[in-house]
Amino acid sequence: MKKLLNSKDTMADDMIAGFVAAWPDLVTTGTTGRIVRRRHLRTKGKDGKVALLIGNGSGHEPIAMGFVGEGLLDANAVGDVFAAPSADAIFEAIEDVTGDAGAVLLISRHEGDVINGNGAALMAQDEGLDVRPLLMYDDISSAPKGKEEDRRGAAGTIFIYKILGAAAERDRSIGDLMDLGVAVRDATRTLGAALRPGTSPLTGAPMFELPDNEDAIGMGVHGERGSGRRPMGPARDLVRHMVDALMEDRPIAPGTEAVALINGSGGTTMMELLTVYGEVASYLKEQGVTLTSPMIGSYSTTQEMGGFSISLLVPTPEMLDLWRAPHGAPQFPPIHLQGG
Amino acid sequence: MKKLLNSKDTMADDMIAGFVAAWPDLVTTGTTGRIVRRRHLRTKGKDGKVALLIGNGSGHEPIAMGFVGEGLLDANAVGDVFAAPSADAIFEAIEDVTGDAGAVLLISRHEGDVINGNGAALMAQDEGLDVRPLLMYDDISSAPKGKEEDRRGAAGTIFIYKILGAAAERDRSIGDLMDLGVAVRDATRTLGAALRPGTSPLTGAPMFELPDNEDAIGMGVHGERGSGRRPMGPARDLVRHMVDALMEDRPIAPGTEAVALINGSGGTTMMELLTVYGEVASYLKEQGVTLTSPMIGSYSTTQEMGGFSISLLVPTPEMLDLWRAPHGAPQFPPIHLQGG
Repeated sequence: MKKLLNSKDTMADDMIAGFVAAWPDLVTTGTTGRIVRRRHLRTKGKDGKVALLIGNGSGHEPIAMGFVGEGLLDANAVGDVFAAPSADAIFEAIEDVTGDAGAVLLISRHEGDVINGNGAALMAQDEGLDVRPLLMYDDISSAPKGKEEDRRGAAGTIFIYKILGAAAERDRSIGDLMDLGVAVRDATRTLGAALRPGTSPLTGAPMFELPDNEDAIGMGVHGERGSGRRPMGPARDLVRHMVDALMEDRPIAPGTEAVALINGSGGTTMMELLTVYGEVASYLKEQGVTLTSPMIGSYSTTQEMGGFSISLLVPTPEMLDLWRAPHGAPQFPPIHLQGG
Repeated sequence: MKKLLNSKDTMADDMIAGFVAAWPDLVTTGTTGRIVRRRHLRTKGKDGKVALLIGNGSGHEPIAMGFVGEGLLDANAVGDVFAAPSADAIFEAIEDVTGDAGAVLLISRHEGDVINGNGAALMAQDEGLDVRPLLMYDDISSAPKGKEEDRRGAAGTIFIYKILGAAAERDRSIGDLMDLGVAVRDATRTLGAALRPGTSPLTGAPMFELPDNEDAIGMGVHGERGSGRRPMGPARDLVRHMVDALMEDRPIAPGTEAVALINGSGGTTMMELLTVYGEVASYLKEQGVTLTSPMIGSYSTTQEMGGFSISLLVPTPEMLDLWRAPHGAPQFPPIHLQGG
């Protein structure tokens, strides 16, 4: 296997060591080496803010570890590669960062994450902490319209991280944050396409198979089954097919401003992602929808997998303001005010 | 070929269209569609600042187009994939952004870039513009110590972009900027390693061949010959071998603070790049050298090639201040004050 790792046994820990060595004044490990948290917490004490955190399997960086910082996450419980951290591990992260104002525990809807996240929240509630789990799902290929709560979490969950992170930094109450999180979730849809598998660092093998002349629509971040295959063709045709599906699932009225997140799966070039963004923007413009303040890059990855997803958020003015707010997370990009 | 492109004929233009659509209040095309420049120039008029620009082949994004913005580049003349733009094309970019204070034309040392860049500078000088070419080279594998000026430009040139960009924004004179650029160049060294080829979007074929159990030290961004091959092993061993070579070429005294840029070649995961950073930091610490304000990610890429480079800068306090200065380029990361 051609990966730059010391060993399978240490790969997650070696990565965390590199991360906290890179930005030691911003982030640190917690009571365990698998908790990455902000160096300077604002969650403790009488006037502390609500904590925001998530537990997730590693192997998808920079999400979620790279998003720990001021105006974003307070902590990330880092699991083994492609494995949700245990309920105990998530509970320890909650204990590390939660004060009187409570915590919102983000859970991206994948089976292990849901079971362990809910278990950790119960453990924390038993200890008297006001911890509320927020289930995140956005992938329209994983369950039909009307069954949104059965859908997987995909890259569009990044909108929730950022918007809730900024709102928590502004000292919003835990009830407000939960309502806002639900509103962002309801305003977000994602659809992905896979071109080439990444190599699992656990097995050294490709994570799925796909013919040389086909792409797979809606495949999950671990190779979960999607909604179908298509012959490879011009990017424009693929993008229009995907935008049609997104707009059918959640129509966006002409005259509306939306935010697009074009997420690369790891092995897709910036040239391709920018091309996709241009096609999304021009196709939506034909339909009277204007884009603003985009995020374009490989932020939620599956090793060096070839592919991408399109996430669309129809923000309220408040959501847009929070999306654009400055932050101090080492690996979240600055979101520029401008766009169009 | 599994790339998200509309056609080979339009791929660079489609990418540029996506880029300027994404951040239209920050960047725009110039008098030709192959010039990407800042929307709001500060280079024109009596009190204008010195312009900073570069011409380069595309296919390596986000460099250089993504680095156009306040406190960084004023313009980028974008060539076809893996092909330097013509002297005429670079000259047009110079004309677009250069005012009375003149321009520094960055040239990353590759044959076509040098010939066309110098040609463009001469054309501009003939028109009465004070344009000075600054040759950039940093790759220690491409020529021996003592022959530094024969070396290739690699990812360490990013230090020059950023530091000169911040200095130009502070209205430094063209003479000062040239001196500073030479000083940064002299204080920078880079060494890379290749693991897997990327696929050329021009040919659809892998850009080089490499056995499954070997990595290649010092290979150039287009597959140029490096300094040797090694059997694949733990990341730690490879990193130590590379740091030894860098420290032999330009020793760094114990007690010195340095900046590391760990650049991914496109298809290398953040988990791997963070692991590499951790190993570089701990090995240098053993030698009394402290790192600060790193840059870690895939910024100068060769499609989805597997590999990375280590660049080390030994900054003066002024260089470090300029490196850390805020900027407005859409695809350059924020450089955090913190490090260590």
